[in-house]
Amino acid sequence: MATLRGGDLSRLRQLNALTAIGMLRGAGPLTLSALAERAGLSRPSTKEVVDELMELGWVEETTPAQGTLGRPARRYRFRASNGYLVGLDIGGHNIRAALADLNGEILAETRRPVHPDIPLDERLAAIEQTVAGCLALGGKTIADVWIVAAGTIGVITPEGRILYCAAIPAWTGLDLAGHLREMFPCEILVENDSRLAAKAEAVRGAARDASDVVFLHVGRRMGAAIIIDGKVHRGFGAAAGEIAMLPQAQLFDASEHLQNCPIIPEGISPADAAGYTLAAARADDPVALAAVERYVDDLAVGTSAMVLLLDPQVVVLGGGFSRSADVLLPPLRERLERTCIRLPDLRASTLGDECVVTGAIDYAVAHLDHQLFTPDAPLPTSGDPQKMI
Amino acid sequence: MATLRGGDLSRLRQLNALTAIGMLRGAGPLTLSALAERAGLSRPSTKEVVDELMELGWVEETTPAQGTLGRPARRYRFRASNGYLVGLDIGGHNIRAALADLNGEILAETRRPVHPDIPLDERLAAIEQTVAGCLALGGKTIADVWIVAAGTIGVITPEGRILYCAAIPAWTGLDLAGHLREMFPCEILVENDSRLAAKAEAVRGAARDASDVVFLHVGRRMGAAIIIDGKVHRGFGAAAGEIAMLPQAQLFDASEHLQNCPIIPEGISPADAAGYTLAAARADDPVALAAVERYVDDLAVGTSAMVLLLDPQVVVLGGGFSRSADVLLPPLRERLERTCIRLPDLRASTLGDECVVTGAIDYAVAHLDHQLFTPDAPLPTSGDPQKMI
Repeated sequence: MATLRGGDLSRLRQLNALTAIGMLRGAGPLTLSALAERAGLSRPSTKEVVDELMELGWVEETTPAQGTLGRPARRYRFRASNGYLVGLDIGGHNIRAALADLNGEILAETRRPVHPDIPLDERLAAIEQTVAGCLALGGKTIADVWIVAAGTIGVITPEGRILYCAAIPAWTGLDLAGHLREMFPCEILVENDSRLAAKAEAVRGAARDASDVVFLHVGRRMGAAIIIDGKVHRGFGAAAGEIAMLPQAQLFDASEHLQNCPIIPEGISPADAAGYTLAAARADDPVALAAVERYVDDLAVGTSAMVLLLDPQVVVLGGGFSRSADVLLPPLRERLERTCIRLPDLRASTLGDECVVTGAIDYAVAHLDHQLFTPDAPLPTSGDPQKMI
Repeated sequence: MATLRGGDLSRLRQLNALTAIGMLRGAGPLTLSALAERAGLSRPSTKEVVDELMELGWVEETTPAQGTLGRPARRYRFRASNGYLVGLDIGGHNIRAALADLNGEILAETRRPVHPDIPLDERLAAIEQTVAGCLALGGKTIADVWIVAAGTIGVITPEGRILYCAAIPAWTGLDLAGHLREMFPCEILVENDSRLAAKAEAVRGAARDASDVVFLHVGRRMGAAIIIDGKVHRGFGAAAGEIAMLPQAQLFDASEHLQNCPIIPEGISPADAAGYTLAAARADDPVALAAVERYVDDLAVGTSAMVLLLDPQVVVLGGGFSRSADVLLPPLRERLERTCIRLPDLRASTLGDECVVTGAIDYAVAHLDHQLFTPDAPLPTSGDPQKMI
C-alpha cells in the first residue's frame, strides 16, 4: 500500500521534478506544453519545475532549429553531458571499454586483446590503458567520469570481490572493485558479465519488449542470466545464473563439440576453432553439422531446465557464438519444442561482442537513476559528482 | 519514476485511506493516535480518513475492554467480516476446503478423500460437497463468499483452464474455472497447487522473512514453485515451476525409491508406502536408509539446478514428505553443499497438508488487495461484492 504524508508539498514538487526528468530523458527535447501533457502536470507547475531543474543544472534549453518562421517554442532537454560513464568488459581474451553520456549514449569504444594467463599487474595495467584510450578517443578525462561499471567473468559479491572465476587464473578472491577504485577516482560498480549482457538486451537489444527473459551467453565459456519482472536477477548472494556448474545441465563442456570438431585444420587458433565449425555447418559440411547437433543436444538440456522452471517470454542467444544464431537457433528450437510445455520466443542477440560493455553502461545509468533520481532523497545540484553519488 | 498529479487532493485522501486500511489489517485494533503514528498522518487527517472508512463500511469500532477505568480510547479495526473467502485444494486423492474472513483468518476446514480415477461429474460433486460442508461448519452460506480460490495439479492458464495434468485423468483440457463458476456465484480464481503452497509459506509459513525462495513440493508427485522479489513467479504462460518434466532433472520418478522400497510389507496402501520407508529410515533401517539416499540423490539434482540458477535465500521442503524433513534435509543439505556455490537456508514447511488450501486463502486475500485496495480506482463501499470485484 502506498504511504504519502498529507500536505507534504515539497515532496510533491520533488515527485513532479522526477517525473519531468524521466520524461525528458526518455523523449528528448520537449516544449513546455508537450512536457506538461506527458507528465500530467499543469503548464504553470511544469514551468516552475523546469525553472528549478535548470537552476539545479539538470535541464537545459536547446538551440531552436534554424530557419523556423516566427518565434519558435522553447524546447528543453535533460543535460546528459553533465557527466560521463565508463563501461568495462574484462574478459579472458579481451578488455573492452566504452564511454557514454548520462543518457547511456555511447560516444567511444576501445578493445585490447590480452592473454588469459598474464599476471595480475599486467591485466590491471591493460584495463587502465583501455580506459585511457577510450577517454582520449571521446575527448574526455577521468575527471569527467562519474561511474566506472565493470563486467567480468565469475561469481562476484555485491561489494565487487570475485568469489570464484574458472576462466581467469588469479581472478578468484580478487577485490576487483578495490583495484579499480585505486585506478579511477569515481564510483565503481562490478557485476557478472552475463548479467550485464542480459541488461543490455533488456534496455536496447533483443529483449526490449519482454519482462521475463532467459539470456544464454554462448561462447567458449557458457554463461546464463535471467530477467524476472523486468529486473536482472542477482540472487540472494549475487550468485544467480550459475546453472552451468551442474554437470547434469550439460552446459559446462558443451562448446568442446565445436572446439574439437575433426574438420578444423591445423593452425586454426582456439579462439577461431568453434567459429570454423559453425561456418562449415552453415555450408552444410556433414561432420560440422553433426558437431553442431551434439552441441545443441547439450545446450538444450540446461536451457530446457531454465525454460521449464521460469517459463520466460523470450530466450536470447547472445555472446560470441550468437553470430551463428542462424545455425544454432533452428535445432535448439526443435529440441525445446519436444521438452518444454510452452516454447518461448527464441531470438538472436543484436548486440554482438559489445553486449557486456553496453550492459555495463546501461547498469551505470540504472544506478544513477536509483541513486540520484529517487523520491527518497532531495534532488542534488548537478555539480561535483563526488558529492552526489 | 513516480508520477503524481499536482494538487490532486482527492487522490491524496485515497492514498491516505489505503494506508490506514493497510495498517489496520496488519496490526489489528488501533487507537486513532496509534494509527496516526503508524500511517504518518496528522491526528485530524486520521480522524477524517477513519470516519470516511466507517461510512464506507470498511472500518468498525471495537467494543472497549471490560473493567477499564475511566473512558477508554476508542479503537478501530478493519471489518474483516464484511465478506468471506473459500480456499480449495483439489488433489488427486483429497479435496480440502477452508473458509476465511477478509484478513485470511481461517474459520473452518474440511477434507474429503476421493479416488484419482473417479469420473469428472463425481469429482465436481465432491468439490461442491466439500465447500458446502465447510460453509456449514463455519456458519456461513455461499452468499457470504466473495471469492473461491482453487489450487489444483497441473499447468493452468491465467483464465483457469487446465492445459496439462498428469495426475488426474480427465483433468487435462478442463475449464475448471468455468465449472466452479457454475457452482459458486462469486469471483473464481484457479492456480497451480505448488504455487499456492509457496504463497502460504511466504505469507505465514517457513519463508515469511525471505523474498527469494525455492519451494519443493515433495510427495508422491514432485512439484516446485519459486518466489522472486517477494512474488510467486507464474511465468509468461503461467507454466513456471515445471522443471520436474525434464528427465535430466531426476525429479519426476524420484519418489519411486521410497514407494517401492523392498522393506514395505504387503498390504500397505500406496498412499502410505513412502511414509513407511521414511519412518523406517528414521529408525535406522539400513535398506530404508539406502532408499532415502537414492531418493535424495535424485532430488538434489533438480534442486541444485534451481539453486544454481536462482541463488535463493531459502529452500522450503513442503508437501506430504515434508513431515519427514528430519530424515530428508540432512542428506539433501550435504549434497547441495557439494554442488552449489552458495548453500541456501534449508527449511521444513510448518504448514503440513494444509499448505495448498492455506495458500489459496492467501492468494484470495492478495487478489482482494489488488482489486479493491488499489490507488488506481476509488475505494468502493463495502456492500454487494458483485459490484466490487
